[in-house]
Amino acid sequence: MKTYTAIISCGDRAGLVTQITGVMYRHSLNVITNHEHVDRQSKRFFMRTQFMGQINEQEFVRELRAVLPEHSICDVRPYTNSRVILFASGEPHCLGDLLLRHENGELRAEVLAVVSQVETCRKLVERFDVPFICVPVPNRDRALHEKQILAAIEKFDADYLILARYMRIFSQDFIDRFKNRIINIHHSFLPAFIGANPYEQAYERGVKMIGATAHFVTKDLDEGPIISQGAIAVDHTLDALAMARRGQDVERTVLATAVTLVLEDRVLIEGNRTIVFE
Amino acid sequence: MKTYTAIISCGDRAGLVTQITGVMYRHSLNVITNHEHVDRQSKRFFMRTQFMGQINEQEFVRELRAVLPEHSICDVRPYTNSRVILFASGEPHCLGDLLLRHENGELRAEVLAVVSQVETCRKLVERFDVPFICVPVPNRDRALHEKQILAAIEKFDADYLILARYMRIFSQDFIDRFKNRIINIHHSFLPAFIGANPYEQAYERGVKMIGATAHFVTKDLDEGPIISQGAIAVDHTLDALAMARRGQDVERTVLATAVTLVLEDRVLIEGNRTIVFE
Amino acid sequence: MKTYTAIISCGDRAGLVTQITGVMYRHSLNVITNHEHVDRQSKRFFMRTQFMGQINEQEFVRELRAVLPEHSICDVRPYTNSRVILFASGEPHCLGDLLLRHENGELRAEVLAVVSQVETCRKLVERFDVPFICVPVPNRDRALHEKQILAAIEKFDADYLILARYMRIFSQDFIDRFKNRIINIHHSFLPAFIGANPYEQAYERGVKMIGATAHFVTKDLDEGPIISQGAIAVDHTLDALAMARRGQDVERTVLATAVTLVLEDRVLIEGNRTIVFE
Amino acid sequence: MKTYTAIISCGDRAGLVTQITGVMYRHSLNVITNHEHVDRQSKRFFMRTQFMGQINEQEFVRELRAVLPEHSICDVRPYTNSRVILFASGEPHCLGDLLLRHENGELRAEVLAVVSQVETCRKLVERFDVPFICVPVPNRDRALHEKQILAAIEKFDADYLILARYMRIFSQDFIDRFKNRIINIHHSFLPAFIGANPYEQAYERGVKMIGATAHFVTKDLDEGPIISQGAIAVDHTLDALAMARRGQDVERTVLATAVTLVLEDRVLIEGNRTIVFE
Repeated sequence: MKTYTAIISCGDRAGLVTQITGVMYRHSLNVITNHEHVDRQSKRFFMRTQFMGQINEQEFVRELRAVLPEHSICDVRPYTNSRVILFASGEPHCLGDLLLRHENGELRAEVLAVVSQVETCRKLVERFDVPFICVPVPNRDRALHEKQILAAIEKFDADYLILARYMRIFSQDFIDRFKNRIINIHHSFLPAFIGANPYEQAYERGVKMIGATAHFVTKDLDEGPIISQGAIAVDHTLDALAMARRGQDVERTVLATAVTLVLEDRVLIEGNRTIVFE
Repeated sequence: MKTYTAIISCGDRAGLVTQITGVMYRHSLNVITNHEHVDRQSKRFFMRTQFMGQINEQEFVRELRAVLPEHSICDVRPYTNSRVILFASGEPHCLGDLLLRHENGELRAEVLAVVSQVETCRKLVERFDVPFICVPVPNRDRALHEKQILAAIEKFDADYLILARYMRIFSQDFIDRFKNRIINIHHSFLPAFIGANPYEQAYERGVKMIGATAHFVTKDLDEGPIISQGAIAVDHTLDALAMARRGQDVERTVLATAVTLVLEDRVLIEGNRTIVFE
Repeated sequence: MKTYTAIISCGDRAGLVTQITGVMYRHSLNVITNHEHVDRQSKRFFMRTQFMGQINEQEFVRELRAVLPEHSICDVRPYTNSRVILFASGEPHCLGDLLLRHENGELRAEVLAVVSQVETCRKLVERFDVPFICVPVPNRDRALHEKQILAAIEKFDADYLILARYMRIFSQDFIDRFKNRIINIHHSFLPAFIGANPYEQAYERGVKMIGATAHFVTKDLDEGPIISQGAIAVDHTLDALAMARRGQDVERTVLATAVTLVLEDRVLIEGNRTIVFE
Repeated sequence: MKTYTAIISCGDRAGLVTQITGVMYRHSLNVITNHEHVDRQSKRFFMRTQFMGQINEQEFVRELRAVLPEHSICDVRPYTNSRVILFASGEPHCLGDLLLRHENGELRAEVLAVVSQVETCRKLVERFDVPFICVPVPNRDRALHEKQILAAIEKFDADYLILARYMRIFSQDFIDRFKNRIINIHHSFLPAFIGANPYEQAYERGVKMIGATAHFVTKDLDEGPIISQGAIAVDHTLDALAMARRGQDVERTVLATAVTLVLEDRVLIEGNRTIVFE
């Protein structure tokens, strides 16, 4: 008996649940949780089922596909750890939090390495016996930098890249290589305060709450599908620096939440929105 | 085409979802939302489906029952307003909030009357053209008081009694007449501060958060199944009175949330816990 | 013995607290609460003191001014109800909430009238025995409309105008007449989703939290000093309409909080930020 | 110029603020923040002032005492790191979080050692180059165990003991040695679910929110003065184990918040309540 997650995404039509669960029933699966959603706007159907059972994976997918419309997405994945690479720059709080959760066994992931353009976090990373790979930016040459990063991480065959306050922007080409597999934490309540220095912006605007947003990275800066958001109250006694300090706890929690959800195959993407089956 | 809600609660067994949705599929129903839950401890299955369609209600329930275990609960209810009576004492904030939501069409309910043992809220209630029924307590005689209340409300044939800061305790007998149909708001974060003067208790204990709890009323004071809870931060500057004032907004919101959930048939009861399909 | 609030705002310099509280001490005032703040950026000092005592108000202010720098703001106000006019359009939830709080004695205000460009909320307002003044927009002529509004409300000599989901924009000239005295609720977490249809925008962007912002109205739409903000979680099951419904409770609470703070003279303005002494 | 924090706690009387700030003014101090509070019930006055300046500490305290009532508390402390020992048992999440914050320089503390009755967290602690002291319980002999702990930590001369999910109870005698200097995190929203297995209790009660409470340890289990509390929503899909997992993030944040507040001398104790000057 193994544990699996089945992810289905297809055009909606009557009878889908009956037919899909019918296949599962015939395989005598032990369904643990089952979530469905129909997006009224796009008329698409989404389903996530976690189950235990003995199946021939290919045969099972074939049977599921037989009851689904053409061009459906139908993934059946054994419940195992994903292969993850973390990216960081100078700020250690999100990075350290993920390393600690990894160490505590909270994440369904194997953290293969941490990549950074600076040496700042080396000591922290090495405390956890995780390889730290410093790839400095050569003469502000982004293309070359990305090539060097790709060369350095190729061997890891990573499922996800997690940007834990990584302060550099990837090229379209780089992002395309990891489509829907790069997760970023932005230190604002998006779409408020896109881009650089969001806490400075928040202070200048005089907001009474600050937040953080975890999202998939797309070519448009800070505009990819949002996975998780959080917010806390601030007041007039906090300047931009104090907001930044206060905001670290939200960033940590929001990123860890998003990463956990993605690693457990709970996040489906529909256009620029996510469906999150908690 | 009418809108219905089907509520099913039964012992869990394999194939239930397939068989239930199979019945719905054969009736060509347009499923709007579908929620399922299995309680691992009690091994019971719960399902709520909202759908549109043309059905013979009795026939449809018969077909559903045919695929369910014996002793299952299977309700199929047209989506209509419930008949509701509000109870209040001296404090108007929860009562007024519900009357206002009713006026604004936010509640799937017809508010038939407000019952109180005092005249305090008469003017407020009558502003909304809702009958205000004052049933004073005769010589501290609870039994007689309840008899008089029952006589006064019998004609309304109410589905739910909502205690909007009603400060009196009902007898076991009274509660049995409205089993799982009386909703109360308690002004604390249960099970903290059961009973009288929870804000006094909270102040004395020096808590940093206060809350409110909406629950079904059972014979044990403040111990019935919880529907909704909320909490807000407080600090040392607030004495018991200030906490009580601050807490009113949580009470309002928590009660309104719970009432909305119950009126939309989203709350199922399993032992002393609720399943809330949001 | 009367209750007063003293509001002081001036350039910061050493010894201010000693000297100001020295004046209060010589007048044998009973200080209830005392708040101070220094804005490090603007180097300005802010203080709010609530006290009971018998004072000659003019003489007391003169003594305070004697210890303050030139060009200081120094207001000493008896603790009384402010005169307030509410503005609304088609949506009743914020308006009704404020009318209810007013009725319950929760607001330190006298609500003099409700102004609207449409008749939608007349019945609700009249339930509370508050004058409802409908000033329709004549041929899309904003200048004339504002002139008619001013004529209609002149007699009330209002301290504050509260826009309870009033969907029209005032001219610079109108705003100047009520400088720092118009409070608006915007149905988003500003600066996200400025302008029209914020819930549509929020749905399109796929956010996981929605919010509301109460702010003073300035000539720049939705860009005035923020008084209060709130946010709640949303998920993929909510479309724009459902978000709008869910958001109403945040709007209500945020506006009521902001109005309460302003009416209790707890909100000071510094540039485009507010200092809120809670 | 050094930074100091002055903490004053005394019976309330008129003129205190004038006289205290007068002393500060004469010493030409640069006041950074100033907080005052009067507890109406106990008629006590509390003040925390953070300032920069050049003072003779003893002389300065003598001058302050001269304007205060007899039996006042008047501490003037240079702004330095406190000496801290962490205690843990089998669960690493709170412990790791504090070690990480310490490593990141977020805490105004020197973490001298971690004490545990089991070896479980040794590896984690040693990753951070912090001494791990395992003091097993000898034959269930609590008295002897405490004696051994005291012997092991005596040399550190610790200011605070922080119980990061330490699952053992100290004797009255042990607590008296560290009066108001032991901080505990309890994994419930106190006073709900005092004692063992709070998540089990929360599940059985069917609550819709769970929380955590950081408090000073007194002889009465889980009844000491509360410093900080937090809460999050839960639903019917979570059993006790899942609640425990979900609750870890609240525990972490609440304990870190409380520790930060205490280390910055922001927490004063009055009876069984705390005054927290944020």
